[in-house]
Amino acid sequence: MKTESRYLRSQFVQAFALCSLVLLPNAGAWADEGMWTFDNPPTKQLRQRYNFTPTEEWLDHVRLSSVRFNDGGSGSFVSPHGLALTNHHVALGQLQKISTPQKDYVKDGFYARTQAEEVKCPDLELNVLISMENVTARVLGVLKPGMSDKETNDARKAEIAKIEKESLDKTGLRSDVISLYQGGEYWLYRYKKYTDVRMVFAPEQQIAFYGGDPDNFTYPRYDLDMAMFRVYENDKPADTSNYLRWDPQGASDGDLVFVSGNPGSTERLSTMVQLEDQRDCFYPLLLKMYRRRLGVLKQYAALGPEQAREATRQIFGIENSLKAFTGEYEGLQDKNLMAKRQKEETEFRARVDSNPEWKAAYGSAWDEIAKAEKLYMTRLKDTRFRSVRASSMAANAPTIVQYVAEVQKPDGQRLDGFHDSELESLRFRLLSPAPVYPKMEEALLVDSLQEGLEELGPNDVFIQTVLNGRSPREVATEVTAHTKLGDAAFRKSLLEGGPAAVAASTDPLVVLAVKIDPIMREVRKWYEDNVQSVETSAGEKIGKARFTVYGKTTYPDATFTLRLSYGTVKGYPMNGTKAPSHTTFYGLYDRAYSFDMKPPFQLPQRYVESKNKFDLSTPLDFVNTCDIIGGNSGSPVINRAGELVGLIFDGNIESLVGNYIYSEESNRAVAVHTAGMTEALRKVYDAGPLADELEGR
Amino acid sequence: MKTESRYLRSQFVQAFALCSLVLLPNAGAWADEGMWTFDNPPTKQLRQRYNFTPTEEWLDHVRLSSVRFNDGGSGSFVSPHGLALTNHHVALGQLQKISTPQKDYVKDGFYARTQAEEVKCPDLELNVLISMENVTARVLGVLKPGMSDKETNDARKAEIAKIEKESLDKTGLRSDVISLYQGGEYWLYRYKKYTDVRMVFAPEQQIAFYGGDPDNFTYPRYDLDMAMFRVYENDKPADTSNYLRWDPQGASDGDLVFVSGNPGSTERLSTMVQLEDQRDCFYPLLLKMYRRRLGVLKQYAALGPEQAREATRQIFGIENSLKAFTGEYEGLQDKNLMAKRQKEETEFRARVDSNPEWKAAYGSAWDEIAKAEKLYMTRLKDTRFRSVRASSMAANAPTIVQYVAEVQKPDGQRLDGFHDSELESLRFRLLSPAPVYPKMEEALLVDSLQEGLEELGPNDVFIQTVLNGRSPREVATEVTAHTKLGDAAFRKSLLEGGPAAVAASTDPLVVLAVKIDPIMREVRKWYEDNVQSVETSAGEKIGKARFTVYGKTTYPDATFTLRLSYGTVKGYPMNGTKAPSHTTFYGLYDRAYSFDMKPPFQLPQRYVESKNKFDLSTPLDFVNTCDIIGGNSGSPVINRAGELVGLIFDGNIESLVGNYIYSEESNRAVAVHTAGMTEALRKVYDAGPLADELEGR
Repeated sequence: MKTESRYLRSQFVQAFALCSLVLLPNAGAWADEGMWTFDNPPTKQLRQRYNFTPTEEWLDHVRLSSVRFNDGGSGSFVSPHGLALTNHHVALGQLQKISTPQKDYVKDGFYARTQAEEVKCPDLELNVLISMENVTARVLGVLKPGMSDKETNDARKAEIAKIEKESLDKTGLRSDVISLYQGGEYWLYRYKKYTDVRMVFAPEQQIAFYGGDPDNFTYPRYDLDMAMFRVYENDKPADTSNYLRWDPQGASDGDLVFVSGNPGSTERLSTMVQLEDQRDCFYPLLLKMYRRRLGVLKQYAALGPEQAREATRQIFGIENSLKAFTGEYEGLQDKNLMAKRQKEETEFRARVDSNPEWKAAYGSAWDEIAKAEKLYMTRLKDTRFRSVRASSMAANAPTIVQYVAEVQKPDGQRLDGFHDSELESLRFRLLSPAPVYPKMEEALLVDSLQEGLEELGPNDVFIQTVLNGRSPREVATEVTAHTKLGDAAFRKSLLEGGPAAVAASTDPLVVLAVKIDPIMREVRKWYEDNVQSVETSAGEKIGKARFTVYGKTTYPDATFTLRLSYGTVKGYPMNGTKAPSHTTFYGLYDRAYSFDMKPPFQLPQRYVESKNKFDLSTPLDFVNTCDIIGGNSGSPVINRAGELVGLIFDGNIESLVGNYIYSEESNRAVAVHTAGMTEALRKVYDAGPLADELEGR
Repeated sequence: MKTESRYLRSQFVQAFALCSLVLLPNAGAWADEGMWTFDNPPTKQLRQRYNFTPTEEWLDHVRLSSVRFNDGGSGSFVSPHGLALTNHHVALGQLQKISTPQKDYVKDGFYARTQAEEVKCPDLELNVLISMENVTARVLGVLKPGMSDKETNDARKAEIAKIEKESLDKTGLRSDVISLYQGGEYWLYRYKKYTDVRMVFAPEQQIAFYGGDPDNFTYPRYDLDMAMFRVYENDKPADTSNYLRWDPQGASDGDLVFVSGNPGSTERLSTMVQLEDQRDCFYPLLLKMYRRRLGVLKQYAALGPEQAREATRQIFGIENSLKAFTGEYEGLQDKNLMAKRQKEETEFRARVDSNPEWKAAYGSAWDEIAKAEKLYMTRLKDTRFRSVRASSMAANAPTIVQYVAEVQKPDGQRLDGFHDSELESLRFRLLSPAPVYPKMEEALLVDSLQEGLEELGPNDVFIQTVLNGRSPREVATEVTAHTKLGDAAFRKSLLEGGPAAVAASTDPLVVLAVKIDPIMREVRKWYEDNVQSVETSAGEKIGKARFTVYGKTTYPDATFTLRLSYGTVKGYPMNGTKAPSHTTFYGLYDRAYSFDMKPPFQLPQRYVESKNKFDLSTPLDFVNTCDIIGGNSGSPVINRAGELVGLIFDGNIESLVGNYIYSEESNRAVAVHTAGMTEALRKVYDAGPLADELEGR
């Protein structure tokens, strides 16, 4: 099951944060709030506020045209021939992986004029949500009175694994059981997978991410944050008859629009104790870790142009996360926001306690979570630092060690992440042929071991096991110098060779991973038995209580599964004046010349040369009130007719507290405008045929 | 003497607020803070921070090139032939006065291609500060121990009037004694006056005030807020050999720049009690009054295009004031700001009290002010509403009635405003031939009488005298229908006819003014004797204490006299990203198209037609850290070489608390760039000869 646990939050968050995005709630009687599941769309709000009723056909069309990018973003099909649109920053990882020191597609952009020129991505998996089935009764049916939290957790997990396995065997589709409403509901989501995904178009990063870190998460904005892939089946462009027609006029001020995508995670239904721990423990720690990681990467990038190229994506990702976390952290420090959340919780609990039956069934949940959280905080550092981190090459080692052990067990007894239904995607990722940059991996590993030493102390069992009296630099240098884990074929030999191959391996990273495996398992088991199991059970109570008290009037927290948001194309009060609902290419040139073409505000040469060749008054970016968050990057913006009018790529600065609360007043989703995309494709990139395919010509 | 009293604050503030501008202090060891008098320039800070030492010649050159616009702004000479540059919004009043229903120079702009086409302004007086003389010893010398506050006040005023009169008789120059450092110093400022001032150039208000009220007091900004006049003597362009050479490159990022102008008023040295009264009493009342006035004017403007034209300047002024007051009011509500001010005051008082001699001399001042303030608040409404307001035509009546009476008295015994040295300027204003719009005057008078009735109640002596049982509408309609005060010749006949002419007049407004004269005098005298005199004496103590404790290390509060500010051309953190140090014409077009050309973001037709005819990357506006406030509008921005590099026209939204505190971090003065001005003159306005004159070609 893919319920996000905060144990894994750090890595998840980074993945989502790559796709910026965040938005916030609040407002009274139904603002444009909510990330709604497709089984429960906000029909009442849409009818009352917008006089719009989505039909079943409309919903199916939107859902089947929507694509999840499994490395942390969203997208949509935009032609019947497998063409998929997403953000440049979602495509960034693949762009970097298909680049070489000689040909830097991140810097220069990429355009395949013919299908033959399309380049296959090494490890990109796309998912389309085919069906949804409510399996709450089945999951909860295995839980018996008198079970301990641990027994409950084990039974729940086993049943979920069983459902997923049965579905996979029956349908051949990727099958995930997800938990919604903190366990109030469990659903089986089935996905069609695409793993032959080829790069079609990407502009220069400098225009996709124009304004760089300073402009990130802000608006007005002037970014052409787009990229296109094509999905193939049997070496031919896939037939994607469910796709979004291109509205060349694009979104206009005041239009009702929808966003269909995969918001990563939110904390809107978390308890106050959980929020307070986020504020007082998680964010300070995360921010410290990310700042440290950023320093290492910047130091590495400063060594030369090739090093800078290698570190591009990670630097982008970490700066992006740091800016997002800072905004979220400030949100948690905002006394008004916290008071609002406290008021909601107090009222909810009072309602629960007012009915003896409800009180008996659900009333204890908040205190149970509080207790588990308190326990959790005592070993927070263990859960963070007793692991091989930062270097993705090195981090693969413990995963491989666990893989070969876990797959020996019955599915229901395995660690999450190793169930049968998950293995294909996991292998796809572990066996990626993408290039590895050993010197960067080494630098990251040196620092993460040093960080572990500082945080856990020299007497920690993990540290002693890893270092064994040597320095972090000695250990990291040695293992990265001699490991073959950078080679996909070696990784494959381990996976296929199973426990015997792993046990026999003398690869220093594998040897290290075997040594630390029991320590990592201990922490994980402790967390699952003492924190996760308690909080899941208590969360289920709160989820049920919410349905009981308020009915199913709300939407679940984000879970990186498909959601529908709705809203209006609308400016907002900003900086003492008004932000317009859209920007134009004129603004791009203004910002460039205003900063005297200094980075990160310089223009790619192509734009300097093209400035008199196209209509600068064409809309470039726009904002709307749709409720989104990290993971929604690349989501299509859709009009009433189910056509594409824009491409989500960010939230504004006011949106960063969206992890906790939504406010319609000034929080906005930021999108690229369809008119801007085709104008640039035709006039700046000379990519008329691609624009024609988008416009159905 | 021209010390601003808060009794008159409402009207003064409106005049200054017309010229936006405000900035804030704080920061540690000498930020770019301060509005320095030319006798005490911040040489130490300039040397230490910028390695720049202004010479006497440099200071004289800047001072003698600077011009005060007596209706509330600043400016500078920009050619040796009397050409004076200021803001469009400073020129707005005169532009409206020379316009007619047939020819609207506010809307369409104005350009005199030849000197013969230059149009004389009806009532614009420009002043150039010729000399400054410290007369503190003489003013304070007449104050004898044992005098009451009232006796002190009378003696001080009499001596000031005497100094002014002597100087006027001796030099023929306008001679004002001003109080600095709350009475810590008194200075005799002598001005050369220009009253034959002719309009040379103004762009369309839509480009001068681009973005209207929403963009006012904000940045980034795209306003060509400029206008030019020429001063004449003996019907020929005046010889202005002190003028600022035009730097065609203009200001660049990081440059040291200076602003020389006339900041109107600040409250940086006021006591906490005074600030609290501002927060709790003045601003709520002012905001209420201004909102009401705005409603009346908007209602009048909605009657038709001619009515809208007539109300333009007043609507602009009131919206401008409302936005400024709102920011100032929020500043006073900012707990951090008030805590900082409180800390300063507490420390200052502790220092004073720590020395028995200082304590005896100055220690009681704060409590004296507190007591006077408390008394003041008991009659705040009387001071505000026992007067003829809103209609400037009607408001002239009491002034004329007082004029003829006051000038009979020895100079030293007259009300402030009627001293010999002030009469010429006052007559110039009272006898202005500018058009009067009777229906607008009527609407304003109706409402201000109604407002007085509501605020003072029907039993108030002023209300009973004015209304005498009739309704505000009846009274206002009748007096405006039959008065001849709209006619300058009639006003002149009254001034020249003296008390007899006034007494004999049957003009209903004059009759009314005569009736209410004793009531208005009573309030004024009560205020002067019980509040002003106490606060002036106490203020003198605080001013002396400040010199005693800290030395003359600071600058006095603004007094609408000439000051020098300094700072750096520099962007700032804004809205989650960075604001650039300058904007370009590209941004103007971006904003226009972003708002779909909807008001107030539409472009004048000339700009739509010119968009491909000039270099849109030319700098348009820029920001700097100079410390300015309302009254600085139109001030020159000057480089190290004493050349003109820009034209101040506003402060950003972060600057609105500048009334109370300066902060270098994010508060900025906003200016038009010289390159933008000449580019527009040459390419958009076909005003090459004027640009040539500016550039000295």
